[in-house]
Amino acid sequence: MKKFDFITVLELLNKEIDQLDLDKNPKELYQPVRYFMNLGGKRMRPILSVLACYLFDNEYIKSIQSSVAIELFHNFTLLHDDIMDKAPLRRGQPTVHQKWNENIALLAGDVTLIKAYQQLEYLPSEIRKDVVAMFNKTAFEVCEGQQLDMNFETRNDVSLQEYIEMIRLKTAVLLGFSMYMGARLGGATIDDAHKMYDCAVAMGLAFQIQDDYLDAFADASKFGKQVGGDILADKKTFLMLKAIQLDKNNSLQNLIGNKMIDNTTKIESVLEVYNQLKIKELTTLEMEKYFKIAISILETLHIDIEKKQFVETYFTQLLYREN
Amino acid sequence: MKKFDFITVLELLNKEIDQLDLDKNPKELYQPVRYFMNLGGKRMRPILSVLACYLFDNEYIKSIQSSVAIELFHNFTLLHDDIMDKAPLRRGQPTVHQKWNENIALLAGDVTLIKAYQQLEYLPSEIRKDVVAMFNKTAFEVCEGQQLDMNFETRNDVSLQEYIEMIRLKTAVLLGFSMYMGARLGGATIDDAHKMYDCAVAMGLAFQIQDDYLDAFADASKFGKQVGGDILADKKTFLMLKAIQLDKNNSLQNLIGNKMIDNTTKIESVLEVYNQLKIKELTTLEMEKYFKIAISILETLHIDIEKKQFVETYFTQLLYREN
Repeated sequence: MKKFDFITVLELLNKEIDQLDLDKNPKELYQPVRYFMNLGGKRMRPILSVLACYLFDNEYIKSIQSSVAIELFHNFTLLHDDIMDKAPLRRGQPTVHQKWNENIALLAGDVTLIKAYQQLEYLPSEIRKDVVAMFNKTAFEVCEGQQLDMNFETRNDVSLQEYIEMIRLKTAVLLGFSMYMGARLGGATIDDAHKMYDCAVAMGLAFQIQDDYLDAFADASKFGKQVGGDILADKKTFLMLKAIQLDKNNSLQNLIGNKMIDNTTKIESVLEVYNQLKIKELTTLEMEKYFKIAISILETLHIDIEKKQFVETYFTQLLYREN
Repeated sequence: MKKFDFITVLELLNKEIDQLDLDKNPKELYQPVRYFMNLGGKRMRPILSVLACYLFDNEYIKSIQSSVAIELFHNFTLLHDDIMDKAPLRRGQPTVHQKWNENIALLAGDVTLIKAYQQLEYLPSEIRKDVVAMFNKTAFEVCEGQQLDMNFETRNDVSLQEYIEMIRLKTAVLLGFSMYMGARLGGATIDDAHKMYDCAVAMGLAFQIQDDYLDAFADASKFGKQVGGDILADKKTFLMLKAIQLDKNNSLQNLIGNKMIDNTTKIESVLEVYNQLKIKELTTLEMEKYFKIAISILETLHIDIEKKQFVETYFTQLLYREN
């Protein structure tokens, strides 16, 4: 088995991102895009794409350029989400609408989305139609997920099932597309590529549930942002929705949306309810349910067993992360 | 010469627009898109695309579906421009951010752009790569034009040359792309399609200059909106920039940005300066300069002379319009 080296792949992706022609005029349009792309991040989506290519073809370099399209698309969604959420910070740095203004951020997002489509011009012609159609479908779904997420903010009757559907759309399908495209670039059949998609969507659900988990239960010294941020923001996470479902004593009713309690007390009180209701364990179970689905689909792919094990190890590291 | 019937083409385009699958969930995402697409408009851009197809192939029906992509793209730009301009009305109806809110309008714009790309999936495979690349290039340029337009608002030293470049990017290149794609759909060579593009860009410049002209000099009973709106908004139109260039007595200095004068007086005073400086005639000359360029390029196309005359008549009607 030829080695897949994450460090090398990340370097190749970042080099490709550095070389995007964003040093153009008018600078008010392109500088914020360059700023935002350079804020860094794990580049998880393009890495998943390159990894999926590697599973079907050791020569994974060919997937680097089109995989950058996914990172551009992801950054487009972040640019516009930050406006909608009025978020002051992204990766510890000022957001674009904060550093410049909302109009600049709006247009920077638009141009980043167009750049994503332009980057897809690198797709080889034999898979272009199929992959672009899947990209378009995914792009709609991500917008639908964002809209559902906004709808949920003002609703008090969100079910766990609706929540899972929202994170499937907002987060998981883009991971699905990433591995779909990578697989196709590696020469996978449409059938295997769809399995790769389903595998990554399940993995995406597990990943997002773990995201919710870490926000409440991470080790503060390793997490990098405030533990309990979702609790303070009254976010309807998997944990909160599960707790509301099980909270027969209505202990949460006095805590959600209550601006009279100080932050530390609020976090501690909600965590106490979580502990009483075994939310930590239930969330881990739910996360592992989707992880197992991902692995069971992975098993069915027509690829080397060593490569399957390699992916499983990587997925495990992604899930049992500490930040 | 087989007839090209504008009424039929408009009906076919509107039917295709009606059939776009925008009646999906979440309705908060798709309803505003449907609302905005149904506000109407002349559908000039897709009509130009279908017309260009017809010039090279009488069977122009085949260009309807992909031409709708251009109308979607145009509406995406309007949705986001309306947010940036804080415009209350579009085609006499409330804008999306006004009727719903800014987040809804932002996401509606995003989804309309993605829908434009999805509609391009109808392009036949032999021209897809080339046409999509041109679409991406055009999309960037339209964003650049919008950014330049915003930059100009806070600048007092905009030259006429810069203004022409701004309207080329913001308006003309999309007309250029429309006729480029139509020509390619009709089987034009890349060379003829590029000529078609150049022809439509020149026509676009003439069209925008005439837009500025009408805003100051239209017959109020036929114009449909307030004559002098640009003057009241201190917009840097072709007329205003030309007048500033020629205004040796600085008569405009006391009028631009002056909030102390009532609206009627301001419009009348600026129009008086325009008349003294022969702005009406100079603007018509400039418009006709670009119109003549468009026609001279049209002459070089490898198409029937009757079709050239047909296009010239249509362009003439577009320019010498009254609203």
